[in-house]
Amino acid sequence: MSPKITTELLKQLRQVMKSPKYVQEPVQAYIVPSGDAHQSEYIAPCDCRRAFISGFDGSAGTAIVTEQHAAMWTDGRYFLQAAHQMDNNWTLMKMGLKDTPTQEDWLVSVLPEGSKVGVDPFIIPADQWKRMSKALRSAGHDLVPVKENLIDTIWADCPQRPCKPLITLDLSYTGVSWRDKIVALRSKMAERKVLWFVVTALDEVAWLFNLRGSDVEYNPVFFAYAVIGMNTIRLFIDGDRMMDPAVREHLQLDSTLEPEFKIQVMPYGSILSELQAVAAGLSPKEKVWISDKASYALTEAIPKAYRYLTPYTPICIAKAVKNASETEGMRRAHIKDAVALCELFNWLEKEVPKGTVTEIIAADKAEEFRSQQKDFVELSFATISSTGPNGAIIHYKPVPETNRTLSVNEIYLLDSGAQYKDGTTDVTRTMHFGTPSAYEKECFTYVLKGHIAVSAAIFPNGTKGHLLDSFARSALWDCGLDYLHGTGHGVGSFLNVHEGPCGISYKTFADEPLEAGMIVSDEPGYYEDGSFGIRIENVVLVIPAETKYNFKNRGSLTFEPLTLVPIQTKMIDINLLTQKERNWVNDYHQKCREVIGAELERQGRHEALRWLIQETEPLISVQ
Amino acid sequence: MSPKITTELLKQLRQVMKSPKYVQEPVQAYIVPSGDAHQSEYIAPCDCRRAFISGFDGSAGTAIVTEQHAAMWTDGRYFLQAAHQMDNNWTLMKMGLKDTPTQEDWLVSVLPEGSKVGVDPFIIPADQWKRMSKALRSAGHDLVPVKENLIDTIWADCPQRPCKPLITLDLSYTGVSWRDKIVALRSKMAERKVLWFVVTALDEVAWLFNLRGSDVEYNPVFFAYAVIGMNTIRLFIDGDRMMDPAVREHLQLDSTLEPEFKIQVMPYGSILSELQAVAAGLSPKEKVWISDKASYALTEAIPKAYRYLTPYTPICIAKAVKNASETEGMRRAHIKDAVALCELFNWLEKEVPKGTVTEIIAADKAEEFRSQQKDFVELSFATISSTGPNGAIIHYKPVPETNRTLSVNEIYLLDSGAQYKDGTTDVTRTMHFGTPSAYEKECFTYVLKGHIAVSAAIFPNGTKGHLLDSFARSALWDCGLDYLHGTGHGVGSFLNVHEGPCGISYKTFADEPLEAGMIVSDEPGYYEDGSFGIRIENVVLVIPAETKYNFKNRGSLTFEPLTLVPIQTKMIDINLLTQKERNWVNDYHQKCREVIGAELERQGRHEALRWLIQETEPLISVQ
Repeated sequence: MSPKITTELLKQLRQVMKSPKYVQEPVQAYIVPSGDAHQSEYIAPCDCRRAFISGFDGSAGTAIVTEQHAAMWTDGRYFLQAAHQMDNNWTLMKMGLKDTPTQEDWLVSVLPEGSKVGVDPFIIPADQWKRMSKALRSAGHDLVPVKENLIDTIWADCPQRPCKPLITLDLSYTGVSWRDKIVALRSKMAERKVLWFVVTALDEVAWLFNLRGSDVEYNPVFFAYAVIGMNTIRLFIDGDRMMDPAVREHLQLDSTLEPEFKIQVMPYGSILSELQAVAAGLSPKEKVWISDKASYALTEAIPKAYRYLTPYTPICIAKAVKNASETEGMRRAHIKDAVALCELFNWLEKEVPKGTVTEIIAADKAEEFRSQQKDFVELSFATISSTGPNGAIIHYKPVPETNRTLSVNEIYLLDSGAQYKDGTTDVTRTMHFGTPSAYEKECFTYVLKGHIAVSAAIFPNGTKGHLLDSFARSALWDCGLDYLHGTGHGVGSFLNVHEGPCGISYKTFADEPLEAGMIVSDEPGYYEDGSFGIRIENVVLVIPAETKYNFKNRGSLTFEPLTLVPIQTKMIDINLLTQKERNWVNDYHQKCREVIGAELERQGRHEALRWLIQETEPLISVQ
Repeated sequence: MSPKITTELLKQLRQVMKSPKYVQEPVQAYIVPSGDAHQSEYIAPCDCRRAFISGFDGSAGTAIVTEQHAAMWTDGRYFLQAAHQMDNNWTLMKMGLKDTPTQEDWLVSVLPEGSKVGVDPFIIPADQWKRMSKALRSAGHDLVPVKENLIDTIWADCPQRPCKPLITLDLSYTGVSWRDKIVALRSKMAERKVLWFVVTALDEVAWLFNLRGSDVEYNPVFFAYAVIGMNTIRLFIDGDRMMDPAVREHLQLDSTLEPEFKIQVMPYGSILSELQAVAAGLSPKEKVWISDKASYALTEAIPKAYRYLTPYTPICIAKAVKNASETEGMRRAHIKDAVALCELFNWLEKEVPKGTVTEIIAADKAEEFRSQQKDFVELSFATISSTGPNGAIIHYKPVPETNRTLSVNEIYLLDSGAQYKDGTTDVTRTMHFGTPSAYEKECFTYVLKGHIAVSAAIFPNGTKGHLLDSFARSALWDCGLDYLHGTGHGVGSFLNVHEGPCGISYKTFADEPLEAGMIVSDEPGYYEDGSFGIRIENVVLVIPAETKYNFKNRGSLTFEPLTLVPIQTKMIDINLLTQKERNWVNDYHQKCREVIGAELERQGRHEALRWLIQETEPLISVQ
């Protein structure tokens, strides 16, 4: 990996930072955040502005360029990568280390008195703007919005913003029509006494209209905003995709509809002026609901007195609770996904000993098997296919420079998933194709105990996911071990593989309580730098639990695994499991055998079926 | 309980709300919060202003009086009590219920345009002021500080502010001299580049100077503030207690000292003017450190640019980590406390069947036995002595109206503790003096399993207590049961029985990580309204744990019980315990027998010793 040479680019950027064509007054610093205008986790190539200006293309990082300096803030996952990808024009600011200044402190220390700091108001979230603006102002500087994105002005071969065709989802997939979703949203708006709702997150727009896209890799979303009033629906979207007859039919664009369900289609770029027009028409006490994570530009378009901000929108919360059709779809998707993985693991068992399978080949093979399944759309994230020491790199993605050959001597960790039209999957299995050491088995078994502790947990209605995180760690903690990531995240239904507002993590974040119908991952792990990585991940559905008693009539919840892929028993030290845990493993494998076995049979995949049967033999105590 | 008649009092209050003698401009509403000027949990009689004006004397509540209305906000623990204690002049605002307005919303709904709302700036914490002031301002009203407390002006027989003699603690109790504590504090101040530190919490003043008092019942503190500079120490305290030769000697008031250790004693009431003088002398970048929970009056005395606010002060954090002398003192205190409880429970076993022991008699007897122990000072909180249905009232305190007779047919719950000069105790035991039902035993055993799960937990250095809370609930959750309070709180060393900054709770609060030397309670419970209450509470010390491995060299922690009082085995359903849990109970009882047995022997308390031996017989499996 050689660093990107950025001398000329930085020179150009510093010129436009002073050019009256783009800025009212010269800015002495320009901030280039990671995100897009929708605060997406995954972004399109045209939004990779920070990577363009610096060369550093990790998923998290903020660049700041001043007349003299160029600095990049990123976290521990990316210190090495950023150092490799950036040339000497750049100073790496290692976040999380004690001596690393914050962006604000650094700016204050390098800027001449009374400086202006520019940023694209569509990219910076309102809460970040507020914090930074306050810090700069108290030091005598100003944070100013620069309307035209300055990176775009110097990015000659900037890719076009994607504008791919849309997929319409009918009721059999979504369970609820977009009209009924609008009705439910308006009733939430009425409850809170707000007149308008602004949809800014891409997955929320997609969910609301029962549409999917492919503008962003791995995430079936499309670039759009929506503004919902009590009697109006405005959808801001570009391209000729609204000309597609299926889409027109789906949205009933050409039907005679009650006016409150008539969708006005407007250009993507007109959201700001339309929102300003909406705000201008408000009288006192009329409020506009917008996420507190929305961009500064959109938030600012609504005068403060009219803003109704919440951390989670009603769409985010409704989207998290899957209805019966979505749940059934997720079940189907996970059955197909398990079929593909049985095929893969059966293939690996045969091929790995030959020494010809690399991490990249294994990942490609996984994709090949998945793509054979009905309604397969694409992967749900970049496959983590890692063996030996690469397994200890938690966000590893094999590239030719690091690509390692699978062998019978090393642990193999595969974290992968796909988008099917009926659901999204995300599964991690850790395998050994030879004979694992006692220590590897010991660590694997602690991770398995943690996985089971969460999966089998019973907890009251109203419990937040973060209260379950320690269950996943207890067995590891007992032996002085741990893992440095959260235990679970929400999973979308043919939508983003990471979604809010629930999760299972030791980090205290404002998660919403778990409720029946929510879907999260359960993925404890253990990683030994330079040696191996272990992770066992299922996607699980929150379901009501039957309990002996029912305190305060609150009701209880538990999880049902949707992922049905064998957990390699060869890696288990059975003596470390309690009887209850052994029963859990046996019951789980029995279910894999029944459900996935039937599907393998149906698909005529007899070799994979034999593999499944062999891998789901009950654990037998050897004590 | 008949309500307090407040018609005349409210009339008087409404008069002074308009009197130019007390207010610059009439105030249309006056807020009477619960607290004192130090944001203490327990307050002195002279600070019970809200109880005086309303009759309601629960521990939490805020009164607001307008020209037309008088309203009281309190939480679910006190709905009944408040309703009984207040007359019809008052409207009860049930906090936590959906339709109950916040104080701000209510004020906005009842006040005439452009109103002034008054409050004593010494009683309201700065963060509450900020929130309320903002809400009122945005509705066109003003929150204004009223210097003279208006309740005091109409409280004819207001008790004097207590000013009791001080106790000096020598090195054998504190382990660190006050001089060394000042040195350590100044080094923390230097680290954060602050020049002054304001000590506002009573237990922090007491801890810093190795002094104790008895101005507030159950809390060995005294009314005082301190302001520590890099070269000056100012102690604000009233009365002739500074004339006490022991105190003068302890503080070296008459010695020739380096100037930076010379304590200037000033009147308690001069804190505000002195702080204002300090602030007036500051140049830019010179900061004053004060808790963000300090009163509005003191916070406001420091211009915003000079304030350095933190949720926990360095004293709060240092105080929480007990040194070897404090730990040894806590051990001694808990041994003495266990002796007293063995005497009590032995006595109860004999007396309860006679039908002559009431909750109050049992509580008094507990105090009597404790007071026989060396260095006993007072109780550490009002004894919760409750039998049968009273046990389900979590903050119960027996009074003649509710006083119930202990019997062989009901569960008895005793939550009690004491202040000894060497330490503070807090212990809960739940007993049956006849034959418990299978269901009572079942519930008790789940609570015990939770208690053990926390007590025996091993967790990495740096773990926050709230991550352990679910361990205490898991066995209850499995059967659909739970309890509606936190699992543990920090405990002071001959100081407040509740102290920050650590704790074990499902409520997400900004707790500091647990570290070796911290002391917390472990007290899960189960309560069945109208029937019984169960709680098992030990005070436990955080200690380093030996583990098989040591991930990232972080080290691990666990707990050591300081409380050594038998847990009634009659209440245990042994079949519900794992072998590990049985071993824990047996090991714990073995330790009780050894440590407390030796002390009972030494004190010649042979009957209690026989009781101890009998109660600490090992559990024998009956399966």
